[in-house]
Amino acid sequence: MTDLKEGVCLNGFWYNHEHCCWNSPQTTFQDRDKCPEWRTWAQLLTSREEEGALGYILNYFLYVLWALLFSFLAVLLVRGFAPYACGSGIPEIKTILSGFIIRGYLGKWTLLIKTVTLVLAVSSGLSLGKEGPLVHVACCCGNILCHLFTKYRKNEAKRREVLSAAAAAGVSVAFGAPIGGVLFSLEEVSYYFPLKTLWRSFFAALVAAFTLRSINPFGNSRLVLFYVEFHSPWHLLELVPFILLGIFGGLWGAFFIRSNIAWCRRRKTTKLGRYPMLEVLVVTALTALLAFPNKYTRMSTSELISELFNDCSLLDSSQLCDYRSAPNSTQGDDLPDRAAGPGLHVATWQLMLALLLKFFITIFTFGMKVPSGLFIPSMAVGAIAGRLLGVGMEQLAYHHHDWLIFKGWCSPGADCITPGLYAMVGAAACLGGVTRMTVSLVVIMFELTGGLEYIVPLMAAAMTSKWVADAIGREGIYDAHIRLNGYPFLEAKEEFTHKTLAMDVMRPRRSDPALTVLTQDSMTVEDVEAIINETTYSGYPVVVSRESQRLVGFVLRRDLVISIESARKKQEGIVSSSVIYFTDHCPPLPPCSPSMLKLRNLLDLSPFTVTDQTPMEIVVDIFRKLGLRQCLVTHNGKLLGIITKKDVLKHIAQMANQDPDSILFN
Amino acid sequence: MTDLKEGVCLNGFWYNHEHCCWNSPQTTFQDRDKCPEWRTWAQLLTSREEEGALGYILNYFLYVLWALLFSFLAVLLVRGFAPYACGSGIPEIKTILSGFIIRGYLGKWTLLIKTVTLVLAVSSGLSLGKEGPLVHVACCCGNILCHLFTKYRKNEAKRREVLSAAAAAGVSVAFGAPIGGVLFSLEEVSYYFPLKTLWRSFFAALVAAFTLRSINPFGNSRLVLFYVEFHSPWHLLELVPFILLGIFGGLWGAFFIRSNIAWCRRRKTTKLGRYPMLEVLVVTALTALLAFPNKYTRMSTSELISELFNDCSLLDSSQLCDYRSAPNSTQGDDLPDRAAGPGLHVATWQLMLALLLKFFITIFTFGMKVPSGLFIPSMAVGAIAGRLLGVGMEQLAYHHHDWLIFKGWCSPGADCITPGLYAMVGAAACLGGVTRMTVSLVVIMFELTGGLEYIVPLMAAAMTSKWVADAIGREGIYDAHIRLNGYPFLEAKEEFTHKTLAMDVMRPRRSDPALTVLTQDSMTVEDVEAIINETTYSGYPVVVSRESQRLVGFVLRRDLVISIESARKKQEGIVSSSVIYFTDHCPPLPPCSPSMLKLRNLLDLSPFTVTDQTPMEIVVDIFRKLGLRQCLVTHNGKLLGIITKKDVLKHIAQMANQDPDSILFN
Repeated sequence: MTDLKEGVCLNGFWYNHEHCCWNSPQTTFQDRDKCPEWRTWAQLLTSREEEGALGYILNYFLYVLWALLFSFLAVLLVRGFAPYACGSGIPEIKTILSGFIIRGYLGKWTLLIKTVTLVLAVSSGLSLGKEGPLVHVACCCGNILCHLFTKYRKNEAKRREVLSAAAAAGVSVAFGAPIGGVLFSLEEVSYYFPLKTLWRSFFAALVAAFTLRSINPFGNSRLVLFYVEFHSPWHLLELVPFILLGIFGGLWGAFFIRSNIAWCRRRKTTKLGRYPMLEVLVVTALTALLAFPNKYTRMSTSELISELFNDCSLLDSSQLCDYRSAPNSTQGDDLPDRAAGPGLHVATWQLMLALLLKFFITIFTFGMKVPSGLFIPSMAVGAIAGRLLGVGMEQLAYHHHDWLIFKGWCSPGADCITPGLYAMVGAAACLGGVTRMTVSLVVIMFELTGGLEYIVPLMAAAMTSKWVADAIGREGIYDAHIRLNGYPFLEAKEEFTHKTLAMDVMRPRRSDPALTVLTQDSMTVEDVEAIINETTYSGYPVVVSRESQRLVGFVLRRDLVISIESARKKQEGIVSSSVIYFTDHCPPLPPCSPSMLKLRNLLDLSPFTVTDQTPMEIVVDIFRKLGLRQCLVTHNGKLLGIITKKDVLKHIAQMANQDPDSILFN
Repeated sequence: MTDLKEGVCLNGFWYNHEHCCWNSPQTTFQDRDKCPEWRTWAQLLTSREEEGALGYILNYFLYVLWALLFSFLAVLLVRGFAPYACGSGIPEIKTILSGFIIRGYLGKWTLLIKTVTLVLAVSSGLSLGKEGPLVHVACCCGNILCHLFTKYRKNEAKRREVLSAAAAAGVSVAFGAPIGGVLFSLEEVSYYFPLKTLWRSFFAALVAAFTLRSINPFGNSRLVLFYVEFHSPWHLLELVPFILLGIFGGLWGAFFIRSNIAWCRRRKTTKLGRYPMLEVLVVTALTALLAFPNKYTRMSTSELISELFNDCSLLDSSQLCDYRSAPNSTQGDDLPDRAAGPGLHVATWQLMLALLLKFFITIFTFGMKVPSGLFIPSMAVGAIAGRLLGVGMEQLAYHHHDWLIFKGWCSPGADCITPGLYAMVGAAACLGGVTRMTVSLVVIMFELTGGLEYIVPLMAAAMTSKWVADAIGREGIYDAHIRLNGYPFLEAKEEFTHKTLAMDVMRPRRSDPALTVLTQDSMTVEDVEAIINETTYSGYPVVVSRESQRLVGFVLRRDLVISIESARKKQEGIVSSSVIYFTDHCPPLPPCSPSMLKLRNLLDLSPFTVTDQTPMEIVVDIFRKLGLRQCLVTHNGKLLGIITKKDVLKHIAQMANQDPDSILFN
């Protein structure tokens, strides 16, 4: 569908340009993208082989039109059927895995619509990728499958394990990177990742990769998206440009996150948010208008990355490999560094313009109401920057091979600098700057490219990029979007180091009235109903007596309301003055008194408690590791207060000098 | 030093055979292991070029003698200076990371002696590897470095993070596999692995890999130990032999663990354990005697693995590549499958004998009083089995290429089966069977060999192997050794699914006398001393009063003893009848009474509590995730009992029908 924007294959409209010409008998290796079966729209409509200026304008116009059609369909479907299908979905999946529930987010409608609109959005030529949304799609599949098995339908924790594995399978399919997928799920998506989940995710990712290989989508028995093979090892001194790429990636990542968040906040708070369709159409039109004239932006982003990663071989006819041939040209694959030819000069300019376009348009694209991933655009920005630096280094080494720094490893006639490797490192750096992944990033990159020899350059770039980006802003793009949307997400990566105690955070505060509690054997139905009506808490602690304040258990508001209501209707003798018993054994009833209501079975007998002197550092740790929603606070065995997840989040925000009221809690 | 067993280099005794001949001007590529500078001991001692039967016997004798000398030195040093330097150290490091303290295990003596004896043990030709011990060595370094920084010296949790990172660096150096190292630390070694540790381990592993690359130990700018490049992709049908290898690996792993544990238990319980030196010497002599006549056992195990992984090229002169040349021999690297030559027949027999030797001798070697790792021997067993199967498959395909299963992908003249790949898969399967690693195993294997294309075969073999081995015995070798040694290790991978409650596990039992507690303001120094003398508990809960049993805090026995002792000596007026106050504010003293002892600062004011109704499933989870040593049990706000880690471990053992008394606790 991406190629449909440019033309059509006469053998069948579902073939893309490359595939169309594969089947053509008249194609040579050199001209493998030119064949009579593939017609641009201008050729087809004017029935002429040659395209003039008019043909160009016609192609241009139809390119934009197709792009608008695709994106319009995408946004229409998303708006109409599944509003949750937009965006990458990774921030929400992180939140869901941390224990928050967003109803319908992983439902069948989201799955269906996201799958269809993702195809449309990617082929519309917008600056977005399919990888993040594929994680969401995989999690939808996982969630829907969970409903088939009682074990998983009933148990929230088990379901989250399935979702972690699904995320791994999603990345495994998106990149053909099974191990990278498992690590991505571990590092970026999952909140709590027990070891048995690691093993199961691994299995899911294996099956996903295996299925992918059986389908063989790239026609080369390879799993990976951008297979590259470089011929020369890298030199230690090259670490300097690699680290420069890391710095660029970090700066771009931080800049991107800031600008994107500012733009998204603007969308949330101003009138802009009311016209999502118009926004999508305007951005699509702008992207298409600016992209068409430049060869490198007109092609799909994954093709672009693939070309940038590529090492030039002798037979390569692409513009990027247009070098002046060396005087003593060698046979075989090893090519010495050569001077740039005119084609490469043009390509350099075009790449610079492409960099500029991708740099800015992605900021406005990510967050629109269409499915949109960030991996491919980030990698494209990095790959362009890397390739440019690589070509620059190569020319520098060629023309100044007598410089001290090139002595010894870059003599004339040697193949010392591989621009494709720079593109790969740059891509890793930019992706790292945006997402702040480390280990999973490196694994994905080398699974993606097969470049195992280049772990150290990739690691150096990924780490520099993370450091630089972290120095400017602590949060990765996903965490930033979580905070922007106000999801109650307790970040597991950052340490809480302040010296506050549980008593400083718990409710009620020192000046407030005492905690609302129920007693185990002295309150009537009326009393309890009054408390339920007066307060909005979602649960109440039950104590032995108001005087002793000794904790018995915890009861949920919802359970209480339902039980009292049904008892009043169905159980005989339950009136407002009936006493509610939470105890195990009930005393014998005095004669003529209303019958009692036994609610012991509602009680959570093992509520979590900490003492008021517990440092908040430990409380935060407990909330994170045990995934609690609330925790009771005691002093010398007496119940004193309660800390909810919201209180913890607000306290962390307060300590970090952020606005505590930005934390929502549905 | 390994080659010193066979001969000596005249240019300098520190050169090994290969290195010695590199520098020789008279060597051709074909005869690169024959050069006049390298002399076997027989050649040197008899001053003759030709070796007769006598020379062979002389070489044999000296080979055994050198082996005995090396292993004698190793065991002497271990016995004399650092008893903790023996074994692989991974079970102990796992235990240490789970919160148990073994004093001196990571000290400077262990570091020094283990480094030296590891060299000796490996060069003695015993069936052991250097990888596991290198993890121990790295952890020693990490621990010693921790002592330099107050932040890490004082904080146990921080130190454990450093040790996790050190383990990653250790594997990174051992295999040249930085990412595999991080995953090994995560999957196998570390108990609790927060995400920030992932990132730091990654950094440590990067620096380790980078340093290794700068030193360039293999002289080929490659990080990896066994670099291989295969020329043909694998076929789907080959998954059947790969899964067979997985089954073999699983069976071998389970068999090895059972036999090794049985032998180690025998060593612990019988007289055998009293003669560790004799044991080492006997095993060394036996290994050397059986190893010398066979070329494949005489060479070092890593050389053997390297040769087994190797894909045969045209110029390869090794016995394993002795095929009959094909009638229409092609130029280049792609070699069609050919019939086996006489050399390969001999090699097959020798490999079978080598398999038999390694199969059995490793059982007796692992666990002796010398540093010994398991990675290399396990991989060797698997690689031999895999290579044999690979050669078998190749010959089958060559001679029966008309069979249905070979149709289409294995036509005559095609290079369809790569025996080296089978060796690699076999090595992964056996290593997986012994250690039960999954993700880290696959990552290490492909970092080790550069075989990124072969993730699916490796994963299939690793998983089959784990399933088969798990079906026979649940524990990997490290867990089995932890249990053999009775370390208090709470396994994080297995779920606790029984329906018991905290009250069933806590002490005191229902029939026992009540829990020993201290009161906060009514006990005298004498009372407390009496309690300390009567009981052996390592800590006591402090309550408001014996009647209320309301919990105030927890005090450690050690702190109490020290404080009372020093107060009696240094503080005026402290006598046996002085009252100990754990309260915040002390009441005014009545006149003429002995002065009081304030010990509030000893009190842990935030002891962990659960209610008696808490399911043990949750209690086990809390112990694991929070790394607790004990936890107090309350009922309706009253202190009822205590659960220690030992109680939890005993309960788990009891539920699994194991002997609960096998759990030690120092």
